[in-house]
Amino acid sequence: MKLSDLGEFGLIDRIAKLSGAADPRVICGIGDDCAVIESGTPGKVLLVTTDLLVEGIHFRRHTTTPRLLGRKALAANLSDVAAMGGSPHVFTVSLAVRPNMSVAWVESLYDGIEERADEAEVSLVGGDTAATSDTTVISVTLLGECPKAEVIYRHGARPGDSIYVTGAPGESAAGLAIVTAEAMGNLQATALGDEEREDFDRLRLRHLDPEPRLQAGRMLASRHWATAMIDVSDGLAADLGRILERSGAGARVEAARLPISVPLRAACERLALDPLDLALGGGEDYELLFTAPPDLGEEALSRSLGIPVSWIGVITEGLGDLRVVDPSGRERPLEARGFEHFHR
Amino acid sequence: MKLSDLGEFGLIDRIAKLSGAADPRVICGIGDDCAVIESGTPGKVLLVTTDLLVEGIHFRRHTTTPRLLGRKALAANLSDVAAMGGSPHVFTVSLAVRPNMSVAWVESLYDGIEERADEAEVSLVGGDTAATSDTTVISVTLLGECPKAEVIYRHGARPGDSIYVTGAPGESAAGLAIVTAEAMGNLQATALGDEEREDFDRLRLRHLDPEPRLQAGRMLASRHWATAMIDVSDGLAADLGRILERSGAGARVEAARLPISVPLRAACERLALDPLDLALGGGEDYELLFTAPPDLGEEALSRSLGIPVSWIGVITEGLGDLRVVDPSGRERPLEARGFEHFHR
Repeated sequence: MKLSDLGEFGLIDRIAKLSGAADPRVICGIGDDCAVIESGTPGKVLLVTTDLLVEGIHFRRHTTTPRLLGRKALAANLSDVAAMGGSPHVFTVSLAVRPNMSVAWVESLYDGIEERADEAEVSLVGGDTAATSDTTVISVTLLGECPKAEVIYRHGARPGDSIYVTGAPGESAAGLAIVTAEAMGNLQATALGDEEREDFDRLRLRHLDPEPRLQAGRMLASRHWATAMIDVSDGLAADLGRILERSGAGARVEAARLPISVPLRAACERLALDPLDLALGGGEDYELLFTAPPDLGEEALSRSLGIPVSWIGVITEGLGDLRVVDPSGRERPLEARGFEHFHR
Repeated sequence: MKLSDLGEFGLIDRIAKLSGAADPRVICGIGDDCAVIESGTPGKVLLVTTDLLVEGIHFRRHTTTPRLLGRKALAANLSDVAAMGGSPHVFTVSLAVRPNMSVAWVESLYDGIEERADEAEVSLVGGDTAATSDTTVISVTLLGECPKAEVIYRHGARPGDSIYVTGAPGESAAGLAIVTAEAMGNLQATALGDEEREDFDRLRLRHLDPEPRLQAGRMLASRHWATAMIDVSDGLAADLGRILERSGAGARVEAARLPISVPLRAACERLALDPLDLALGGGEDYELLFTAPPDLGEEALSRSLGIPVSWIGVITEGLGDLRVVDPSGRERPLEARGFEHFHR
């Protein structure tokens, strides 16, 4: 059997079985945004997350800059710590790259990493470099910390909880669509009006330079507001599916309440895409998707977190059953698959 | 300028400048076998190390098995923790691999990782997987811990210290030479006598399945015996050069005291190689190279550590000056370069 038959999630399931369930120091191994490890300090845990960026899969060199790529490589990991409610701390970067790559490219990559590190107040402490014959691969591992009693796992959602999301998921996918259309010569910036151009610039940056929601995640944890949380990296539906799977619950999402931003709508019109598809299926937004008791309103949350928060539905009893209510009021099951490696 | 002009060590120097020197929690960033981080627990530090294994550079699929490759990927990181005197704890594994790779290959890889993890009592807690179009890349990050007062850095060597090494460095390089000669059809196992075949099997395993010296490293640290330590990954001369650079000292190595094992000598005879070259220049032995006050003898150390330890020379005043005394008594400077990526 080939990996392409098993699929990425099949592989991860098999690897997860090896994960250190028998080790009392491991509070949570594979299966959440970060591993959660006893730090040795009573009441504090260590968070560990790692992400691999592969050229041609996660990025293309002609549709981003090395600086933005460096920022994003770290941001994806920072977002994992945010999704546990933790504070990021130190990280390592390993890089496999062709020997004929320019030093300027690699230095810009590290400049971008360092910029993002300064913003998040985290420190580069190690790494490895190696030559490769072909594809550039970047591997980042980030450590964080969190008070043990404040960690927010994927498994805490309870029937009746409200489902919230920060920002406007789908914008990153729209940004990717714009970048791709431009690279293929299917979209000329000169053909756009001023307002549309500004909208598209914003979407492009949402894809190329996403903002990890560290302060929001930390506040949701320290106030004990969220019962379960994940970051939107594979798409809202897929990531909500993971909360449901781990929580043994279902969900009903109100399509009409999904935050479809003006830029997202404009890009979808121009590129003949469905904003609802992008909002539910688009990945790499690095927004926070969380559940909370129903008495917390979206306005109060937005005010407290300092970023837009939208109520998008409720957790139900239906074991893994993810449903969406169309704007017309019709309810249908929602396929909870995100981007999957190995499958074609 | 291309990376191939700058070289790996030039790149690492540039990256090291970005390393978190201003962060008071970072005791040691880039520049030792592990990063050393304040753990939050008084008197204890966190160790962080990461290694990248790239197909075609660090391994070839036709000269190893996925199980041995998995064991070695983790062993290389365990060895870094051993070289600080620490205890390994938890690790992550990321894998970029072609979708048409067999599931059996990937499962064997993880079986090997898990076997080695069980032996070292460490736990897999996370990772990432991605499809790649070409080269397989494995990225392992390992965390360990150590009492703060016991950490052994590269910078502690003082003039007059003795230089010791465990095991028989060069055996891994001999093993690689055997594996390569066999793969190229230049060496047939059937042409070997029984004894030679056993010797060659041992060398092959020293290359394909190296043993991290965790217990020895821990004892050297807890007894405060070693003043500086590194693991032999890039070659004895290159790695000793790193101790000298960080310690601001020189060294005189007695070639006649280098432990050239019977198998190493046999392989060098068969393959027309110089055992001294392999002992000084061969990489990936994952033996411990350390300095210690002169009153500790090699016999007492061997007994205490439970593995062979050889006295090979002394630390001198000569700032970075690495000299070797030939068996004939002639002293010459030694080029301290190991394997370097990007250079051709």
